[in-house]
Amino acid sequence: MPKEPKKAAVIMGSLSDWETVKPAVQLLDKLEIPREAHVYSAHRSPQAAADFAAAARDMGFGVLIAAAGMAAHLAGALAARTTLPVIGIPVNASLDGMDALLATVQMPPGIPVATVAVNGAYNAAMLAAQILAVEDSALAARLAALREDMTRCAAAKDAQLQTMLTM
Amino acid sequence: MPKEPKKAAVIMGSLSDWETVKPAVQLLDKLEIPREAHVYSAHRSPQAAADFAAAARDMGFGVLIAAAGMAAHLAGALAARTTLPVIGIPVNASLDGMDALLATVQMPPGIPVATVAVNGAYNAAMLAAQILAVEDSALAARLAALREDMTRCAAAKDAQLQTMLTM
Amino acid sequence: MPKEPKKAAVIMGSLSDWETVKPAVQLLDKLEIPREAHVYSAHRSPQAAADFAAAARDMGFGVLIAAAGMAAHLAGALAARTTLPVIGIPVNASLDGMDALLATVQMPPGIPVATVAVNGAYNAAMLAAQILAVEDSALAARLAALREDMTRCAAAKDAQLQTMLTM
Amino acid sequence: MPKEPKKAAVIMGSLSDWETVKPAVQLLDKLEIPREAHVYSAHRSPQAAADFAAAARDMGFGVLIAAAGMAAHLAGALAARTTLPVIGIPVNASLDGMDALLATVQMPPGIPVATVAVNGAYNAAMLAAQILAVEDSALAARLAALREDMTRCAAAKDAQLQTMLTM
Amino acid sequence: MPKEPKKAAVIMGSLSDWETVKPAVQLLDKLEIPREAHVYSAHRSPQAAADFAAAARDMGFGVLIAAAGMAAHLAGALAARTTLPVIGIPVNASLDGMDALLATVQMPPGIPVATVAVNGAYNAAMLAAQILAVEDSALAARLAALREDMTRCAAAKDAQLQTMLTM
Amino acid sequence: MPKEPKKAAVIMGSLSDWETVKPAVQLLDKLEIPREAHVYSAHRSPQAAADFAAAARDMGFGVLIAAAGMAAHLAGALAARTTLPVIGIPVNASLDGMDALLATVQMPPGIPVATVAVNGAYNAAMLAAQILAVEDSALAARLAALREDMTRCAAAKDAQLQTMLTM
Amino acid sequence: MPKEPKKAAVIMGSLSDWETVKPAVQLLDKLEIPREAHVYSAHRSPQAAADFAAAARDMGFGVLIAAAGMAAHLAGALAARTTLPVIGIPVNASLDGMDALLATVQMPPGIPVATVAVNGAYNAAMLAAQILAVEDSALAARLAALREDMTRCAAAKDAQLQTMLTM
Amino acid sequence: MPKEPKKAAVIMGSLSDWETVKPAVQLLDKLEIPREAHVYSAHRSPQAAADFAAAARDMGFGVLIAAAGMAAHLAGALAARTTLPVIGIPVNASLDGMDALLATVQMPPGIPVATVAVNGAYNAAMLAAQILAVEDSALAARLAALREDMTRCAAAKDAQLQTMLTM
Repeated sequence: MPKEPKKAAVIMGSLSDWETVKPAVQLLDKLEIPREAHVYSAHRSPQAAADFAAAARDMGFGVLIAAAGMAAHLAGALAARTTLPVIGIPVNASLDGMDALLATVQMPPGIPVATVAVNGAYNAAMLAAQILAVEDSALAARLAALREDMTRCAAAKDAQLQTMLTM
Repeated sequence: MPKEPKKAAVIMGSLSDWETVKPAVQLLDKLEIPREAHVYSAHRSPQAAADFAAAARDMGFGVLIAAAGMAAHLAGALAARTTLPVIGIPVNASLDGMDALLATVQMPPGIPVATVAVNGAYNAAMLAAQILAVEDSALAARLAALREDMTRCAAAKDAQLQTMLTM
Repeated sequence: MPKEPKKAAVIMGSLSDWETVKPAVQLLDKLEIPREAHVYSAHRSPQAAADFAAAARDMGFGVLIAAAGMAAHLAGALAARTTLPVIGIPVNASLDGMDALLATVQMPPGIPVATVAVNGAYNAAMLAAQILAVEDSALAARLAALREDMTRCAAAKDAQLQTMLTM
Repeated sequence: MPKEPKKAAVIMGSLSDWETVKPAVQLLDKLEIPREAHVYSAHRSPQAAADFAAAARDMGFGVLIAAAGMAAHLAGALAARTTLPVIGIPVNASLDGMDALLATVQMPPGIPVATVAVNGAYNAAMLAAQILAVEDSALAARLAALREDMTRCAAAKDAQLQTMLTM
Repeated sequence: MPKEPKKAAVIMGSLSDWETVKPAVQLLDKLEIPREAHVYSAHRSPQAAADFAAAARDMGFGVLIAAAGMAAHLAGALAARTTLPVIGIPVNASLDGMDALLATVQMPPGIPVATVAVNGAYNAAMLAAQILAVEDSALAARLAALREDMTRCAAAKDAQLQTMLTM
Repeated sequence: MPKEPKKAAVIMGSLSDWETVKPAVQLLDKLEIPREAHVYSAHRSPQAAADFAAAARDMGFGVLIAAAGMAAHLAGALAARTTLPVIGIPVNASLDGMDALLATVQMPPGIPVATVAVNGAYNAAMLAAQILAVEDSALAARLAALREDMTRCAAAKDAQLQTMLTM
Repeated sequence: MPKEPKKAAVIMGSLSDWETVKPAVQLLDKLEIPREAHVYSAHRSPQAAADFAAAARDMGFGVLIAAAGMAAHLAGALAARTTLPVIGIPVNASLDGMDALLATVQMPPGIPVATVAVNGAYNAAMLAAQILAVEDSALAARLAALREDMTRCAAAKDAQLQTMLTM
Repeated sequence: MPKEPKKAAVIMGSLSDWETVKPAVQLLDKLEIPREAHVYSAHRSPQAAADFAAAARDMGFGVLIAAAGMAAHLAGALAARTTLPVIGIPVNASLDGMDALLATVQMPPGIPVATVAVNGAYNAAMLAAQILAVEDSALAARLAALREDMTRCAAAKDAQLQTMLTM
């Protein structure tokens, strides 16, 4: 009996982060990675966030993605309650997102958060997929195909530029 | 029967913060404010930190002081579990303390942290005393005396400078 | 005869800060905290600001909130004239508010300012309420209820997201 | 026949980064994760770096760790040549490490780097272990034990502080 | 037989940088410098970028201009594959362009990138022209004439201001 | 009867700033400008600072220099009480002096502070001298001589370098 | 025969800075200070800028104001050619004006620039007036009146707020 | 008759920059590029700096290198007086060198400065060599050999690390 594929969770600190986070959910869907998405706040619903993280491995999750702005504690708060890899998306809600970036990436020794760029939801999902693909060769193949698409697309853009330049 | 005075708690994320935090404990002692000090980490012992904050009001605390560096979540993590005022000391452990400052002060709406300067432990205790003195006129009198001392001390320093300048 | 509840003061450096500051006044009203609001400038009307702060405790205030932008001295100027707790709101008028944040939070030893996030007027009022609630159990109960509302609201947002995801 | 466990690679841009990077190698060894360590520079030996990354999955690696300072391109250069997860350690060689942090974390869409704190080699290895433990329950158990050690250690430090405070 | 003049290459990491980069192409054309423009990404098409740079000198290029945003590796990636001078334009795609500036300018010893201002495409082309003019006196004369135009234009603006002031 | 020359005042927020401030006093003495130096704190002795500034013009001062670190309010607090020009020296006491710089220079409309570089006490005195020299041709002549000395000194350094290079 | 009052010069690096600079010219006019305004660029017309500064004292100027953005060298370039006080206005043309601020204020020892806030043209003129008023009691009186207006205006704003709050 | 090779000039704003600048001179010597080095200050000896730059092309220079700290105007001041390529080295004299970096790189349109990393004297000389090598195939060959040395050296460091790891 084949093993169930691990799921990815996308947690946001506020429903107002949804537009920023949506590209992550869309890429997970495109890569056929089972996922859930939730609103849990490190500050307004800390117990719900802690409970989810503590139970995540047993619920079949392989990786958590957390998006939050300002003094962005969400990813760190989840990471403190699980040993699953936690990916942090610093959301630009103030100070160009520098506060969220530093609050996410500068984790003290012992509890890492895998931080991506400010508002980098797409890359958070890509990283989640790369993590789940380490032992999933079918997913790895889908990632390789996606990468080849990117390279082809860049080449197509160069061709398009040549056309633009000769007009 | 007179009411017990409220206690102040000084929480640090790591025992290595003790030297930075000590001036807070010393000022609380000088101002005769009952206090406890503890090591609780938002990341390495999150449940202990959460439990302490949740029980703090019933244990007779009136104000919490939290000191942490890097992605300094401790003050915010405590604030998420109590409605007591929480004072945050950003500890300079990297980036001149800018990461700790932003991770402490930029709290989202609903859960404030009363942030003082980077490594500002003395002022954290002063602020705690000011908070506890709102309804404690004896403590308010001790604070007023301390303030007068400061003013006298500044005047004495000016006199000392005049002496230095004439030498 | 029951004691009068302490008042909160909301001071702004310029009437143009009113829209930023209004959420503080609204939250104080919602929490039934008596308050005043004033325009005093640390630079254009320094004596008025100093006189107000010096008299604030005797006028029945328990906490001062000060909002200012740029080289935001207002909170510190008030704090220099009273031993009441002073809460500073750095207003974003330039440089994403980093100038106002540093000018408010980096107070030298002896004169603390309880600093909240850039433009964090709502949290300034919440912190003021937490300070006044230390010895006011009725206010503390109102704060606890407000916190529970926040937690319920976060849970409701998660439910709303689940609905959105299945559409 | 049991599958071989995936290896971790620790790549540094310069041998002078070795002291910064060593805690990563030591933690991988402690967690019994097979690993290699190499000096490849994105700028001085770009082909060697590219070749290593391109072949890494076939060589049995499951995750790459890259450490570099200044305009730290190494992690991104490796990530451009593999779909394995790549963890970036920004090394503080100038500007408090802010240049390395931004050059590592702000990757454009499509090619993520899982960034940890400035000089955060220990956490880079911890994150690598968390990634490899997603499908390796024995490693997951070792991580859980290590986490419990951390929590116990924090509690022991609190006890030690109580002793110090009563002396 | 007169030598062919060296060409300038303008490389952008994404076609979306074209509007930012266009002033460089226009100035090269105005100065009658032969040029090509291409879309090559350090991350999505790293081999194309590397191959172009490695062959650039033999293809008759004398200078490369590279424009990229965020963790802007493009200029450095090209510079790692050629000993031609490489000019980097940090593109403002996030954080006011500070990430791109630091990722472009803070190159480690051995592989320089001649960095111009954030979004400074016009100056990148001017610098390319200055480089190609070192041994090309006709181009140097065109640059001298352009400089004189600038000085005349500044004087004309001063005259225009005097008119405005007297109205 | 010739007019008394105007005096310069050098105010520092703390006697611990003396070593930073001393070059200002020394340059004023060298330029034969009458001066006083004082310790007045915007926070610990605000009334003394305010009184001094308010009386400064009548006491024969023509310019005030104020040095302070952290949330450096001193120059602004003096400027709020006088219409004499006030020069601010941001002292590096934390954050590389960026907090002091922004707290000094970002004054709101109406109350300027003439800000010099972080720890720029020498230049503060030079600027004070330039201000007092506007209507004092003898002082202007001393400044012109000092400027010529600087130029000669730079030329001498170039000569010294030529000697070093040929050794 | 009464002495001619000294003039103020307002120099801008580009005519596009005019809207930013205009408040300076308007305040000088309001204060009846004779003035000129010019477009001189430290980079595009360096000789014109140098010549103006070198001749400024003899032409009857008492103070120079210089406004420039980006790598704002204009104020420093003028200051290098005169011993008159030079006031620098950092213009926000990029990076929130931080580049212009640092390029203006961080002058090396010997050649100060009296720097005001980013885009602080109004304060630049106020500072110029304060400088010219040191020996001009009529101008000093006009400044004192203007300051009193400011204080009255702040009081009027407070009264206006009280009306708004009771509606 | 073969053409004389173009010379490189290394200009520093202060002799105290010599230790920072020396690697540039040493690399130029190693690459057999004729060079001069001078102390000219944009602020203390502006005319000498301007005269040198204006005459540089006629004196046989092909490229200028300028090193300065703080509000580093030197490179821009030279660039304003010549159409030769000017390379700027921001020297870290304060603020981690961020002031010098921004004052050097953020040049306005028309007058570029080819900026290298903070304290990047070695790379400034490398870039100068790359510029002079565009039309000098012998120098280009020396640069290619140096690059190969770098690549070999990186490989040797990897071998050294393998030895260290097995000890």
